[in-house]
Amino acid sequence: MLFRRLASTSAWTLPPTIRQILSSGHDSANKVQLCGWIKSVRRQKNVTFAVISDGSCPTGLQAVLSNTLSSQLKLGLTNGASVRVSGSLVNSRGTGQAKELQVDSIDVLGECNPETYPIQKQTLSVDYLRDHAHLRARTDTNASILRLRDSLTKVMQRFYERHDFCYVHTPILTSSDCEGAGETFRVTASSAVPSHVPDLLDPSDSPSSEFFSKPAYLTVSSQLHLEALASSLSRVYTLSPCFRAERSQTSRHLAEFWMLEAEWTWTREVNDVCQLVEACLKDALVLGIGEEERRALAKGVPDYDQRLRCLEDAASSKPWVRLTYTEAILELEKYAAAAGPKASTFQFKPQWGCALQSEHERWLSEVLVKGPVFVTDYPSSLKPFYMRTNDDGKSVACFDLLVPYVGELVGGSLREERLDVLCSRMSALGMDTEGEEYKWYLDLRRFGSAPHGGFGLGFERLISWVSGVENVRECIAMPRWARRMLL
Amino acid sequence: MLFRRLASTSAWTLPPTIRQILSSGHDSANKVQLCGWIKSVRRQKNVTFAVISDGSCPTGLQAVLSNTLSSQLKLGLTNGASVRVSGSLVNSRGTGQAKELQVDSIDVLGECNPETYPIQKQTLSVDYLRDHAHLRARTDTNASILRLRDSLTKVMQRFYERHDFCYVHTPILTSSDCEGAGETFRVTASSAVPSHVPDLLDPSDSPSSEFFSKPAYLTVSSQLHLEALASSLSRVYTLSPCFRAERSQTSRHLAEFWMLEAEWTWTREVNDVCQLVEACLKDALVLGIGEEERRALAKGVPDYDQRLRCLEDAASSKPWVRLTYTEAILELEKYAAAAGPKASTFQFKPQWGCALQSEHERWLSEVLVKGPVFVTDYPSSLKPFYMRTNDDGKSVACFDLLVPYVGELVGGSLREERLDVLCSRMSALGMDTEGEEYKWYLDLRRFGSAPHGGFGLGFERLISWVSGVENVRECIAMPRWARRMLL
Repeated sequence: MLFRRLASTSAWTLPPTIRQILSSGHDSANKVQLCGWIKSVRRQKNVTFAVISDGSCPTGLQAVLSNTLSSQLKLGLTNGASVRVSGSLVNSRGTGQAKELQVDSIDVLGECNPETYPIQKQTLSVDYLRDHAHLRARTDTNASILRLRDSLTKVMQRFYERHDFCYVHTPILTSSDCEGAGETFRVTASSAVPSHVPDLLDPSDSPSSEFFSKPAYLTVSSQLHLEALASSLSRVYTLSPCFRAERSQTSRHLAEFWMLEAEWTWTREVNDVCQLVEACLKDALVLGIGEEERRALAKGVPDYDQRLRCLEDAASSKPWVRLTYTEAILELEKYAAAAGPKASTFQFKPQWGCALQSEHERWLSEVLVKGPVFVTDYPSSLKPFYMRTNDDGKSVACFDLLVPYVGELVGGSLREERLDVLCSRMSALGMDTEGEEYKWYLDLRRFGSAPHGGFGLGFERLISWVSGVENVRECIAMPRWARRMLL
Repeated sequence: MLFRRLASTSAWTLPPTIRQILSSGHDSANKVQLCGWIKSVRRQKNVTFAVISDGSCPTGLQAVLSNTLSSQLKLGLTNGASVRVSGSLVNSRGTGQAKELQVDSIDVLGECNPETYPIQKQTLSVDYLRDHAHLRARTDTNASILRLRDSLTKVMQRFYERHDFCYVHTPILTSSDCEGAGETFRVTASSAVPSHVPDLLDPSDSPSSEFFSKPAYLTVSSQLHLEALASSLSRVYTLSPCFRAERSQTSRHLAEFWMLEAEWTWTREVNDVCQLVEACLKDALVLGIGEEERRALAKGVPDYDQRLRCLEDAASSKPWVRLTYTEAILELEKYAAAAGPKASTFQFKPQWGCALQSEHERWLSEVLVKGPVFVTDYPSSLKPFYMRTNDDGKSVACFDLLVPYVGELVGGSLREERLDVLCSRMSALGMDTEGEEYKWYLDLRRFGSAPHGGFGLGFERLISWVSGVENVRECIAMPRWARRMLL
């Protein structure tokens, strides 16, 4: 038989997007054809102006139609309708855009009833848009955030590629609970519900009733798995979904969120880990967001100018401040003492050995430092078992990066690479160092152990910080939190 | 107080990896320091040769030590030990490598007992290595596969960036089951086990007992969510974990796998979707794997030369073959009829209206076409509800891409954008078009509907195809399948 083979694909490409058309310096002699959705329509005496967006850039493109043309349309030129237009790209006589499209022909591909369309022109509340998660990317702000997310991903990928990290995929389903916080999601095969009831409820399920022969959970962090891969590939990172069954409703927490986590060997100082974090975040601030996108995002943020100055300062070449936990506690105590029992001081008393509360973290970055601050060397009692014990025996080589408006953005540490030290710490915490659960983790220290460290960065928090969009629920396309999962 | 700020990070970088050292054209006058793991040691009369790898490239680096130096070491220079070495990079006098390291000093950072180290020099079976998932990346082949995975990710990202796609993150937790196959994983908050038992077992849980107020599942495909985002951003793609609670144990299935899925608007021909898939896969074949890495991988594959010829042919500019399902059935029937009742023909009789079996798919790509083949326009009864109905009313505008050795690599289609056609198809399948479950999906057709299409590509299968590594369990760092979840 004769096989149908289409023309060679090497020169193949999709038709240009509006972004590509606007950025390519099109010649007005050349006709362009493009598709998109109507964002607004303005009828004047002889002509109709319609802004068309295909989501590829914040501005969209203004199309100018003769009213003769628009009156011939069978379907209405309404907000939200999808259209295909052809015409010439010309210099705009109006303000607000450099180019506009002089339309020769237009077709409405998908109509949109202006009475029932949920995305109306007026400002819609974030709550309303959360209730319409399937359509909210059609608003300028939400589309901008999604493009920013894409852009920040690229900047991060390039940073880690430049530093010879290997991008890896770590498991989502796991039997281990990295943080030990217990707020995990449990996974069962829905088709495997056995007829005998008790198995399902008992965490020590008989192997036969479990899909994986043992209980499975959604990962809360990729770190332990990254450590295994770093013990072969030296430098690894991932951008991976993580899950915490947190019931608290805050602007910084989601049940499903994405974390950028990196882990690398041959590092011996927590300051070196901070250095890499600072370098990659400065790339995010400098390269992650263009001027046009920033203007589009600024519209929804009341104190945007102040935030922007703060971001510009953080992006400058000036190194970020580092404080030890002990120094941070001293500063907090000093402030609390000087302020006296005023309403403006803290609800929780700062005290060595106790966790820093959100109010403390915000004060450190927003008031004391007025910028990002690495707080290092926390007491070991406040941190998980895997962090490397300092020579003082009571603190660990770790850091939290606190940034204004967001709070904790990154957490990281050196990992304990000394088998004996790790085992005694685990034993002290009542963990079983002889059993199967951590055997593999201890093996990494048993065979060719290497000093190493790493960190985890909350990706939605990064987007919140860079964009000025306050709640992480707007920083992900389809957010999930306690009692909320649409689509 | 005086804030400690370290030197500016702008010029900051990590020490070079072995790959960077070897590719940078180092001057032998400059001393280099590097870290890695010993891969092999060979003692001769005056010198010791040790191959050191840090996982950054397939070859590693040969280090040459005087026996005086190696005899001074307190810890043994054994396979798997981690070391730090300094010396000069010189032209190698031996064969097998262009450069070698003349060692001035060496430290063993982490010893490795050669008696108990699970990764011995001799060839280890895939089963043994699967049992040692935490260490198997230390073998040359598994490290190569992980680097290939990284490389293919980058090639794909660049492809989609060039074509102005927006990289998005779609939800992992969802209430909808895209494929309707029912083999899903169910998710519950492990801390939320209520004291009253019945709720937990009843799929129609009372809202209070569910973390999200309704049952949650792990996604089997991002497609429906991508469609929502494409209806704003026009071109979107994701590389996302997907989950199927499949109990079948095959070389092509995992319970947790990664899918590259893309979705874009304003496309009207299934051939256009095929065209994009072909272009992106040719990029993967041409750019995804370097010569050195290919040689490293070839070692483990018996029929590598034949596979390589097949891959080179697929990567050529010659367009890939396209067959309709109807044509494919005719070819299969013809072959089965000509072969008669011989043992070499099919176990399942090829028949219009029935699914293509694995044996049919393999015959089409491996025997008939001897290369990748797009089989298009399957009967609608064999495909999910969302695929666009063709004008003949009985087939849908879809395709499966079949490739030699792997079988189905990609599946895609135009999506039904006509609200009325979609609703009748759903009703015919007994799906509720009035309820909440699909309201959002139908809204995408109700308001500014746009013709669109997309596809899903099994990422482990792509790696299997490109690498020649037969089983997808080797194509992901830490595989999960029925009854198997290590780490």
